[in-house]
Amino acid sequence: MAKMNKSFLNLEENYLFSKISKRVSDFTEKNPDTPIIRMGIGDVTLPLPAAAVAAGKKAFDEMGVKATFRGYEDSGRGYDFLRIAVANYYKSFGADVPADEIFISDGAKSDSGNIGDIFSDDSIVTITDPAYPVYVDSSIMGGKKVQYANSNEKNGFAAMPCDIDPGGQQGEGKGGQKPDIIYLCSPNNPTGSAYTFEQLKTWIDYATENRAIIIYDAAYEAFITQPDKPRSIYQVEGARKCAIEICSLSKTAGFTGTRCGYTVVPKELRLESPEGKEISLFNTWVRRQGSKFNGVSYPVQRAAEAVFSKDGQRQIAENIARYRENATIIANTLTELGIDFTGGINSPYIWFKCPGGINSWDFFDIMLNQANVVGTPGEGFCKNKLSNNGIDRFRLTAFSTKENTEEAMRRFKKLIETKR
Amino acid sequence: MAKMNKSFLNLEENYLFSKISKRVSDFTEKNPDTPIIRMGIGDVTLPLPAAAVAAGKKAFDEMGVKATFRGYEDSGRGYDFLRIAVANYYKSFGADVPADEIFISDGAKSDSGNIGDIFSDDSIVTITDPAYPVYVDSSIMGGKKVQYANSNEKNGFAAMPCDIDPGGQQGEGKGGQKPDIIYLCSPNNPTGSAYTFEQLKTWIDYATENRAIIIYDAAYEAFITQPDKPRSIYQVEGARKCAIEICSLSKTAGFTGTRCGYTVVPKELRLESPEGKEISLFNTWVRRQGSKFNGVSYPVQRAAEAVFSKDGQRQIAENIARYRENATIIANTLTELGIDFTGGINSPYIWFKCPGGINSWDFFDIMLNQANVVGTPGEGFCKNKLSNNGIDRFRLTAFSTKENTEEAMRRFKKLIETKR
Repeated sequence: MAKMNKSFLNLEENYLFSKISKRVSDFTEKNPDTPIIRMGIGDVTLPLPAAAVAAGKKAFDEMGVKATFRGYEDSGRGYDFLRIAVANYYKSFGADVPADEIFISDGAKSDSGNIGDIFSDDSIVTITDPAYPVYVDSSIMGGKKVQYANSNEKNGFAAMPCDIDPGGQQGEGKGGQKPDIIYLCSPNNPTGSAYTFEQLKTWIDYATENRAIIIYDAAYEAFITQPDKPRSIYQVEGARKCAIEICSLSKTAGFTGTRCGYTVVPKELRLESPEGKEISLFNTWVRRQGSKFNGVSYPVQRAAEAVFSKDGQRQIAENIARYRENATIIANTLTELGIDFTGGINSPYIWFKCPGGINSWDFFDIMLNQANVVGTPGEGFCKNKLSNNGIDRFRLTAFSTKENTEEAMRRFKKLIETKR
Repeated sequence: MAKMNKSFLNLEENYLFSKISKRVSDFTEKNPDTPIIRMGIGDVTLPLPAAAVAAGKKAFDEMGVKATFRGYEDSGRGYDFLRIAVANYYKSFGADVPADEIFISDGAKSDSGNIGDIFSDDSIVTITDPAYPVYVDSSIMGGKKVQYANSNEKNGFAAMPCDIDPGGQQGEGKGGQKPDIIYLCSPNNPTGSAYTFEQLKTWIDYATENRAIIIYDAAYEAFITQPDKPRSIYQVEGARKCAIEICSLSKTAGFTGTRCGYTVVPKELRLESPEGKEISLFNTWVRRQGSKFNGVSYPVQRAAEAVFSKDGQRQIAENIARYRENATIIANTLTELGIDFTGGINSPYIWFKCPGGINSWDFFDIMLNQANVVGTPGEGFCKNKLSNNGIDRFRLTAFSTKENTEEAMRRFKKLIETKR
């Protein structure tokens, strides 16, 4: 009988969002007339920028005419027009990324999982905890061993190499095993924290010392406003020798349903072969993609190109400003109430301590039943069961409308003040 | 130092298309004024059907308006509107495929490679030879062991279980090892042969006996005209218990640049866990996709839905008829010249014996230099080096224009008649 990949048995069931939607549907069944404000799932609400819509439509028109029809994209790595647009975008904030190291993808999720395919199954993967669950799940599926770097109150929910857990306990000093792969996400999902230049340099030095590869998820880079936080890891010295960067238009340009992202793989990155030879990581990734990825739809690539145009950039800046305004509304409410939080400044996520330090699922129920607001319990992002970094934390997103965000905060404030 | 997936070292470099384009560019450099007819790569030339263009544009318009904007697709498995359209399409030719077993994909290539992720690394994979190189390459990348079933003149280039090679030599009887996975492609790329109901039943019985899973690539099903050839493996009894089917709109609706396909995973399929328990293959695939796939762009899914509309079906029927006409032109020329071939009837590919039985690369050079026609040497599709199933075969595609196909055949005929 055909045998399953046994690593799948090591996966935890991903109950988080199904558990949330079960509780929400139970509530709405009992309270059909109570409107709920959803600030849980990290999905955008503002429509695609007009420039992207126009470009996507124009591209479909081209596809309908023989003279301008496009079949297979030769490289599968993205059209030059888009790769050049992305390279220029990087240049605009001071990162030097050549177009031929950019791979156009269908979003950050697939590449952040698929990149694991080119690494040895016995790799040690360091992942900050809490984190976007895909890093852990795809590493486990690939048979890799995962260790955690604890993000917690002490480090402002931005784990550093000294926070690597030597096996379940909170580490002091460089604990854990020598890593081969390190997943970092900044601005972070779910904690909203963003690394400074200096902090990222520490991670780069640590990776270089261990000859590990950093997989840097920059999906929220467009939300960065403070000048001491880099928008790309390539703004920091030494990154080209140890880091892959994964980015997405999902949150910055409303592409969660249109699907486009990009991954940067510097040509100088090296992997070790079983014979101890140094192998080009870039070539290995090209080979993987050549057999297992089809490339991104032409109309979608044209829509993405338009995001990087002058009009597109102006339009997404307006959208991001609106989400930032929501984040500020939430952050101000928390500050006013004296509740500890991270995020909200350089990030669309706000990660705060559940009032009274209660369990995040209990707080979820209170928020749902008493304020009719849906958020995400911090526990859902935490896999390191021995440290419970998110057990008393709660995530809200800034992707709702201003009206709903204000209304949610009014209810939240009332709820907290009543409890006190 | 981060270690590479050592299975990548077992991959052969994929020289085929780079070797072809090198020879073609050398030729055009020396002969800048000689027009070349390209019938090598399997890419379409007719534009996207008008119904798909209109639907794609409409969907982009929806994405630009808040009320109709779509963010994340909940399941990542495809919108119901498209899955239902695909299920109805299956029904139209007598295959019973429930919509909730259909996974919308970005094309056949990624799923035919990615499906390997859910099987154990030590799986034995049987692949007909010659074949689409992705089956072998993605199996090797996943650490699996590949054995071949030889397609050759004897079996009309449609390998059967009795053609499984017991280790390099042509097998008589059921050779080789007990397989866990079997890749079949019908109508076949590159040989153009299509399995009959009876032949597929033999494969299904063989897979059932061995409790193996068939991965059935039906990307060319729309080219089938003869009633004894099924368009889906699910038209054959027993398939739901052993087969996954992968299909694509690339060739049938000109989606090579727009990117959409679908994969059918029956819920009754089972995999064996290390403890000998039976595990749902469907659930395992859902889990894999949930962590490693982003779903397909909404405008692309709407364009695909339109392909299955009445207008869309009429429009693609016209396109397919034109490609079929080209196939007939090629087939008639070969018949007239007394050259042995397969395909051309139920397939856009024509696979023929190089005149005089010469090596396929030598024939490639003759075709290029003397007839100025580019085809694909059969050797490029063959990985079983001990049997050399395609060493004296050549593939032409019917995806060119009628004018070019006719002109190519005039030159081909002249070339052959001059040599005789």
